[in-house]
Amino acid sequence: MPEPFPSDSVGLVTPARQHFDQPLELVSGRVLESYDLVYETYGELNAARSNGILICHALSGDHHAAGYHSPEDRKPGWWDTAIGPGKPIDTNRFFVVSVNNLGGCKGSTGPNTPNPATGQFYGPDFPIVTVKDWVNSQQRLAEALGIDRWAAVIGGSLGGMQALQWAIDHPDRIAHAVVIAAASKLSAQNIAFNEVARQAILTDPEFHDGRYYEQGVVPRRGLMLARMLGHITYLSDESMGAKFGRELREQKLQFGYGVEFQVESYLRYQGESFVERFDANTYLLMTRALDYFDPAADYGNDLPTALRRASCGFLVVSFTSDWRFAPERSREIVKGLLDADRNVSYAEIEATQGHDAFLMPLPKYLDVFHAYMRRVADEVGA
Amino acid sequence: MPEPFPSDSVGLVTPARQHFDQPLELVSGRVLESYDLVYETYGELNAARSNGILICHALSGDHHAAGYHSPEDRKPGWWDTAIGPGKPIDTNRFFVVSVNNLGGCKGSTGPNTPNPATGQFYGPDFPIVTVKDWVNSQQRLAEALGIDRWAAVIGGSLGGMQALQWAIDHPDRIAHAVVIAAASKLSAQNIAFNEVARQAILTDPEFHDGRYYEQGVVPRRGLMLARMLGHITYLSDESMGAKFGRELREQKLQFGYGVEFQVESYLRYQGESFVERFDANTYLLMTRALDYFDPAADYGNDLPTALRRASCGFLVVSFTSDWRFAPERSREIVKGLLDADRNVSYAEIEATQGHDAFLMPLPKYLDVFHAYMRRVADEVGA
Repeated sequence: MPEPFPSDSVGLVTPARQHFDQPLELVSGRVLESYDLVYETYGELNAARSNGILICHALSGDHHAAGYHSPEDRKPGWWDTAIGPGKPIDTNRFFVVSVNNLGGCKGSTGPNTPNPATGQFYGPDFPIVTVKDWVNSQQRLAEALGIDRWAAVIGGSLGGMQALQWAIDHPDRIAHAVVIAAASKLSAQNIAFNEVARQAILTDPEFHDGRYYEQGVVPRRGLMLARMLGHITYLSDESMGAKFGRELREQKLQFGYGVEFQVESYLRYQGESFVERFDANTYLLMTRALDYFDPAADYGNDLPTALRRASCGFLVVSFTSDWRFAPERSREIVKGLLDADRNVSYAEIEATQGHDAFLMPLPKYLDVFHAYMRRVADEVGA
Repeated sequence: MPEPFPSDSVGLVTPARQHFDQPLELVSGRVLESYDLVYETYGELNAARSNGILICHALSGDHHAAGYHSPEDRKPGWWDTAIGPGKPIDTNRFFVVSVNNLGGCKGSTGPNTPNPATGQFYGPDFPIVTVKDWVNSQQRLAEALGIDRWAAVIGGSLGGMQALQWAIDHPDRIAHAVVIAAASKLSAQNIAFNEVARQAILTDPEFHDGRYYEQGVVPRRGLMLARMLGHITYLSDESMGAKFGRELREQKLQFGYGVEFQVESYLRYQGESFVERFDANTYLLMTRALDYFDPAADYGNDLPTALRRASCGFLVVSFTSDWRFAPERSREIVKGLLDADRNVSYAEIEATQGHDAFLMPLPKYLDVFHAYMRRVADEVGA
């Protein structure tokens, strides 16, 4: 049987599961008595245990960041572009850990898993978790894996926020933070978009106050709308224009509310397919974690003061056409790091793809990323 | 009893109604056998009938552009800032006509009025009308009022598109077109936002295929979501930041999906109050008219060719922080007019308020507008 995977792929991967019995105190004041984290690893941990890389996922991501779950998979993990042999996160040198966050819907404990106290799905009883809580749970996983210090914690968007929080909360346990297409906190407009998405889900009659699992339904309409809206904010006006323009699906106008323009067809498809693979309660929870993220709030609302807690090196990357987390937002982080006298590299990448650019195979972006990661590998003896 | 209205207000106004029996052929191929238009007028038509101004409204607007319907009204009409004695559209000089468009929901024939053929509400049987159709129906109203030629046709946003279409379709009947915060066609991103709003309404279980009037319900949730989303696109990131920032409603986080941030409270209020005053079928129809607007399409997709049909003077205005119809979109119109050798004044106004700026009392904007309208008044002998 011929090798079915590209030579720069990590190939076939299998998720692992770690159970934690030590209660986790959450920022909200609530406590998770026990929980599971599902994760994947790529590459080998070296003898010095110094080459560990933690990948943090964004709103709709999960632990499956690279490789394939079966030879039949049509697509690899969500960041296969950046993770693999010879890629920026080079699995020939690094041991890469990618975890499904608490509250996620792909195996880690969350709303769609059973609450051990009741035997029913958690649903709305699952506590709202924050970026800080995720980082603490990820630190427990690092302990379980015997990794005292990550060579780097890396993420884009909400993932980049986790990398930033890691640097602040566990300065001794992280050598580098790679913060891509992120922000140090959401703007009122960002929160507003999240709120519309949440209201779409919360007001869907099939949401049933979050207990839809027991009813055998899902709030399809709400989740579909949330995803359609999200997609608009992930793309740039320019990239949507280049991809779809005003192209019609039929040769002439139909004068109705069916699909007239190709962009409508694309959005509906994105919305409908998302419903098949994602959980509405998790979507609510992830958007709240985004809203709440504001590491400076614990330090007198002064970002440099928060960042002075960190001691790692930083790579910050932004994309010119990203309007969800625009370059200005990355520059705020960079400025905060410079004011805190921290070591930061910054790249603002010319890209037309909007926020989604962080997932794309853009040579300039991957070159910068790769160069930085080579330095990291050399430094930690990977 | 003291005079309850400000001295620069048109004061108490009463809507008028005009019935039309001559069938109106629509761009879609369908025919409206008869219809009513509701409108208001401010100021006096001069003897030469040369001082008529037509105001065209935007997506959620109506005929009540200035003044008050009763002494108890808390707010005047939607463009009272610009219309009144001594204001840019000076009712001491001009006779101003403001019409509720066909398909609207404030008295003109539309989905929420009875279909004479059935005696039931039109609902989804009301034909989809286009900007071109509106202009033709407005021309019928001009005839009924004895106005052969408007001194100016004026509008912002979708209203500006009507002014542009007037200039192209009825060059002999319009001396000036004032096109504010508009675009010569929607981008894929604009259409995408409209599509999310439409899907919110169409998938609301209380939409009942548009026949909700008979059911005694309205698609509240859908219309609320559409309006919340619309509001985000009317404001700028900057103005939302200045207005709300990350301000909390309570002193500390609640860790739930109720209102945490002030911006959420604002959006929910905007969404809920819109449901009380607007019709979902009309919202669908207005967004489609926006999507379809593309006057160049009839002229080989060449905007200058379309604009060469026009012979009026043009004032085009845009606002720096408007991202719904950004200054670039107004510059496309200006460039098209220059390529067509037409007479155009253009002002790009520094403003933080986003698309909503066109409704605001911004001195620089009103000065430019007023100066242009003084020239119009002098020219037409108003």
